[in-house]
This record gives sequence, C-alpha cells and structure tokens, in this order.
Amino acid sequence: MGSISKDIDSTKLLVKQADKLKPLQPADKLQFGRSFTDHILSVSWDVNTGWTEPVIEPYKSLELDPAAAVFHYAFCCFEGMKAYKDAQGNVRLFRPERNIQRLNRSAARVALPTFNENELLKVLIEYARLESRWVPEGRGFALYLRPTLIGTGADVSVSRPRSALLYVIASPVGNYFGSSGVKAISLEAASSPVRAWPGGAGDNKVGGNYAPTIVAQEQASERGLQQVLWLLGDPSVPEEHYITEAGTMNLFVAWVNPETNTKELLTPPLDGTILPGITRDSILDLARERLVPDGWTVSEKRVYMREIKEASEQGRLLDFFGAGTALIVSPIRSITWNGGVVDCGLKEGHEIGDLAQTVKKWIEDIQYGETEHPWSIVA
Amino acid sequence: MGSISKDIDSTKLLVKQADKLKPLQPADKLQFGRSFTDHILSVSWDVNTGWTEPVIEPYKSLELDPAAAVFHYAFCCFEGMKAYKDAQGNVRLFRPERNIQRLNRSAARVALPTFNENELLKVLIEYARLESRWVPEGRGFALYLRPTLIGTGADVSVSRPRSALLYVIASPVGNYFGSSGVKAISLEAASSPVRAWPGGAGDNKVGGNYAPTIVAQEQASERGLQQVLWLLGDPSVPEEHYITEAGTMNLFVAWVNPETNTKELLTPPLDGTILPGITRDSILDLARERLVPDGWTVSEKRVYMREIKEASEQGRLLDFFGAGTALIVSPIRSITWNGGVVDCGLKEGHEIGDLAQTVKKWIEDIQYGETEHPWSIVA
Repeated sequence: MGSISKDIDSTKLLVKQADKLKPLQPADKLQFGRSFTDHILSVSWDVNTGWTEPVIEPYKSLELDPAAAVFHYAFCCFEGMKAYKDAQGNVRLFRPERNIQRLNRSAARVALPTFNENELLKVLIEYARLESRWVPEGRGFALYLRPTLIGTGADVSVSRPRSALLYVIASPVGNYFGSSGVKAISLEAASSPVRAWPGGAGDNKVGGNYAPTIVAQEQASERGLQQVLWLLGDPSVPEEHYITEAGTMNLFVAWVNPETNTKELLTPPLDGTILPGITRDSILDLARERLVPDGWTVSEKRVYMREIKEASEQGRLLDFFGAGTALIVSPIRSITWNGGVVDCGLKEGHEIGDLAQTVKKWIEDIQYGETEHPWSIVA
Repeated sequence: MGSISKDIDSTKLLVKQADKLKPLQPADKLQFGRSFTDHILSVSWDVNTGWTEPVIEPYKSLELDPAAAVFHYAFCCFEGMKAYKDAQGNVRLFRPERNIQRLNRSAARVALPTFNENELLKVLIEYARLESRWVPEGRGFALYLRPTLIGTGADVSVSRPRSALLYVIASPVGNYFGSSGVKAISLEAASSPVRAWPGGAGDNKVGGNYAPTIVAQEQASERGLQQVLWLLGDPSVPEEHYITEAGTMNLFVAWVNPETNTKELLTPPLDGTILPGITRDSILDLARERLVPDGWTVSEKRVYMREIKEASEQGRLLDFFGAGTALIVSPIRSITWNGGVVDCGLKEGHEIGDLAQTVKKWIEDIQYGETEHPWSIVA
C-alpha cells in the first residue's frame, strides 16, 4: 500500500512516460505560455497524510470540485524559471533553488502547505531532464518552467485549505523580439490602481497580485504604452510618487548621483511591496562585483519620479531598465508621468543602453553556460 | 446546432436533473461550505463566441487545463447569498439583483467577462427553485448560494483570459451558534498585514482579497480572538489607525457623538477599501428610515480606533457589530488594540447589544418573509 510520505520524497518519484510524444514546434513559431510539453510533474498534499509520492505523467487536465479553495479565495502561488541549452547540448537551470525557496515563502503567505526544498528541486531537475528535447537551442530561447501550488480542498468557508496540489508544467519560449533583437518599451506611470502596498502580499508570487493589474495594463496599451510603472505615494502629490515595479518586472535606474557626482545603479529596496526577483538579485550581485571596482555605487533605495525626471532633464540619467526572468533586461525608452514624458536617456536610434546591454550579456553568458558560474547548474 | 449566444439567455436554460438525489442532512449537522446540493448551474464564455446556453446538471467536478488562468493569476470572483424558507414554505431570495450587480463589477475589476444581469438572475432563481428541498426551515437556517466566475483559458501569459466559466453551487447552512443563540466575538485589531488599500481591489469580491488574510486570522485565533479587525493608517502611529472591516464583515459603531451629544450609527465609507456589503447597505437604509425619526444620526464616515477607545472609556460606546450575509449582525465584545483592550459596551452577561438585536430582527423579518418588503422576493 506504500507508506505515508509526510514531506516530498524525491526517491519515491514515479515516472509514467507518454506513449506518444507531441511534435516540437518550429523555433520561430513558439508562443510563450500557450503550448506545453508532453508531461506534468505533480505532488499532492492532504492535511492528514502530508505530501504524496511525486509523479511525472502525460500532460492532462486537472479535475477539481467546484468548491475547491483556489476558485474562491485565490489560494495559489507560482514560480517562473527557465531551462537553457548550452553549446554542448546540456540542459541548464539558473539558480533554481532560489525559485523553490520563494515558492515556499509564497505558500506560507497564503496558507498553503510548505515542503522540503531540496526534494522538490531534485524532482524538478528530473522533470527538466525528461523534457530536454523541448529546450530550444540558441540565445533567447528556453523552456519556461511553471511550478504552481493551489488549494484543492472543497470547502468555501474562508479557512486554510485541507488539501493542495503542487505541479510543474513547461512551455518552450522563443526569442521574444524575433530576429529584430531587443526593443525598448515605454511606460505609463500609475499611482492608482496600486499593485502592492506595505503589509500586502506584493513581495510574494501569489496569484492575487496579478488579475487586478490587467485592466490598467490594457488601458496603457491602448495609449501606446507597453507596461504600467507601478508607483506608490499619495496619488494627489506627484512629488511623493516613488517607483516600485513595472508590469511584472523589477526596475533598475542608472544615473549620476546629484550629491556625489558619481555613477550609481539603483533599485527599489525589498520593503514588502517589491517582488524579490532572482534576476534582480543576480544583477545586484554582479554589479557589486564588476561595477564597483570601476567607481560605481550600487544601492537598494527608494527612487522618486521627480528624481528620475530631474536626472533626465539634467542629462544625468544613464539607463533605465526592467529586470525579470522573461527578458533578463527590458530597456525603457520613456515614462509618461504627471502630464509629461520623461526621456530615459537612450541614444538616438538605439533600443538598449550600454549598461543594460552589458548586464544582459553577463546574465545570459551564465545562463547559457558560456561563462562557468555556480549559479548555472547542469540538470 | 443552436445559434451562438452572445450574452446569457435564460430562455436557453437546459435542465438535466440528477437521477438519484442525495439524502438531506439533519438540520443540526449542517456544516457551512462543505456539503453541496444535487446540482450545479453553469454558463461558459469564450472570447470568440460569447456566453453559451446556461445548464443546470448534476453536481460534478470541473475539468481544467493546468495552465488555466485561475490557477496562476487569481482570475476569480464570487458572491455569497442565501435562499430562505418562509412560513408558507416558499423559497425567498434577499435583494439578489444586488449580488448579481456586484459580481459583474468584480468581474470587470479582474478582467473577466461581464454579462446581462437580468438573465443571470432568472436562471439563478430557476436553480434556487430546483434546489428548494435543500432550503432548511427555521430562523438562522438557509441555503447558501455561491455564484463563482473563473478564468479558464489555458495561457500563462499575464493577460485577459480568453475563456471563462460562471457557475453556481449551493450549500445548506445551519444556525451558526446552534441552540445557544448568538455569541459576541472579540477582535484583534491589526494595522499589518493590511486587507485592502486605496487603489487596490478590496472593494470587490475577488478571490485575491481572501487567501492573504488566513494566517493573520489563525494567529488572532491562537490568542483567543475570533476575528481580525483590519485597520488602515500608518502602523507606527496608533492615533492614525482607522477601522475598515473585520474578518469578512462590514462594521457598525453606535455611540453618543462627542460633539452633538446625540446618538449616531456609523460605518466606514465606501472609499475603495471597503466591500459594499448588501447587509451593510440594507442596515443603512433601514436605520435611516427607522432610527432617524427617534433622533439618531446615521453616517458613513471614517472611524478612528482612538475615537472608539475614548467612547468606550467615557461610556458613550452603545454598540459595535459586524454585518454580513453569514450572520446578519455579529456582536463584538472587545477589541485588542495597541497593547490594551477596548470594551465595546455589552452589558454584563449579554451576548448582543440592543441595537444589534433590533437590526438583526429587522433584516431577518424581511428575509424570512415575516415582514413583507420589496427586498425579499419569492423564487
């Protein structure tokens, strides 16, 4: 009958391979998040018996009671991570233990069960290996992995779910901008609606942070602006507006500091309103190692819109970019804010700034195994 | 083949009755939200074809792709409403059009499809009729109806779902406090975590508002306090703490106004951080009609914790209660706040204040058809 597994146990992994494999899509036809690989990895949990044996099996629908907690109260959290193919054909993961740690932290925030991180990492690596034929080759290409944890207990009282399901699906992703290379985006700064708030859940990757952002994103898009820049600070007092994130990315500002007159790379601090991005953390580490010797300062501190505008007007704004798993860095051309447009300092005809380009190469060289680094592990 | 239905059309309702009906549970064994009736009402939506024919069919599991939007980004909203049995055995609904309106508003907030409210109301009434044997008799008993709307499109890009499912399930509910009657609860006032914030989604009944509240509720419970009183205002400045909601209820304060020295019934205003409760609205309407002639003032305005504490200390706090569909009014004995306990004015040995008792009777008399009122409709 099998013994009851209290926590996830990678040695109990059961693999049921699909009889018939799906055809791979041509690399130029890959559309993020809409097509998935042959298999799903899942582990279920029950308040009485704990975590069951992990299973990799053919991709299939989930069958859930209409009273399942996830449908009513957003008991859900997830991760976004990628598997890359290196020049030797190995599948590589980038700091995967960080995603697993963050998933556990998100789970605790929304009353979902936590788990042994090392054991989940082991079965996740098995899954990435099994799906290796789906990892496309080439810079910008990857297999996106989506670990997801949902409350499945059929109970519409507002309480901790009594059962849950952790699963991983995978979607091959192409080079976002096709052969035309990277493209700078423009942002619409918004002080309302508000994505996250001190004491809220904006520093966790929980489902509830996302659905309420869509309408604002669509409205920005209708005005020709690709992402919303989420501000905090009293909406009626523009001097108090400070930046948090843009779309689903962390933000980095490079400027000449007006007080010290030296170059500074800034990102908003992890004050509870900011997702602790793994790309963000990696950029900070590499910048401290590689930019500081060249006289740069690297800071996590609050950045006000008025400061960005002033830097732009005074020619002190060197670069401004988003950072996340999807694009590593996403260069920003301008910000519509407070009735005006702030130019972010990109040179005429350029789609990315020098620093953003450098940072992107640092990270990608590690992800694709061109630079050997402990952050990149062979699956 | 049927024509494509752009919006919900009640005349297209298809009813497939269950062959075998479940046994009813004894009234004293009813447990809210864990057992459900024989049928589910559902209508599905697709971005290309609109809403399909509504169907009432045997209660069943939902089958969804693991990439369905609801699992990842909390594309979900719901309503809570009740069907009551009157002395003549009729099934009655209380202001159901208000729940349907609010569901539509919640849907729009989280980028889910909206619908014709009258048409949904008609099929909801059909559903309540069909399940009438499940509506238990007696004060405090009811059949809880749970309209739910989820994003079902299999797409993990952060965007508007391309398909959705609206469904209604129902759970019979007993007298919450059994034969012992109503019981006053004590609250733990919390300025962090925060439930909702200006510019957030706290004024809509969307899933994401709920999961992040569970851990705080459990911690209050461990300290012997039944619900969290959600505060706003700078956590580090107790003088600025003001009340919003408690648990999942709106709040009412009755006091002698310190400036006018007259009786006042207060509730926080709909400033974007408060759920526009239908019980709240009904209490306000009835209080304006029935208390104002007796010299009361009825106000929607911000109430600070320091004001409640001062009123308590000066013997001016007459009553303090939560309001919601579950219990109509939930009397409050005390609030733990800022290192002390604020007594809410209940008399020794009493579990409910005079005003709360009066208001509860007003609403229940209408809900159970004892007082004829346009708010209560026979299904």
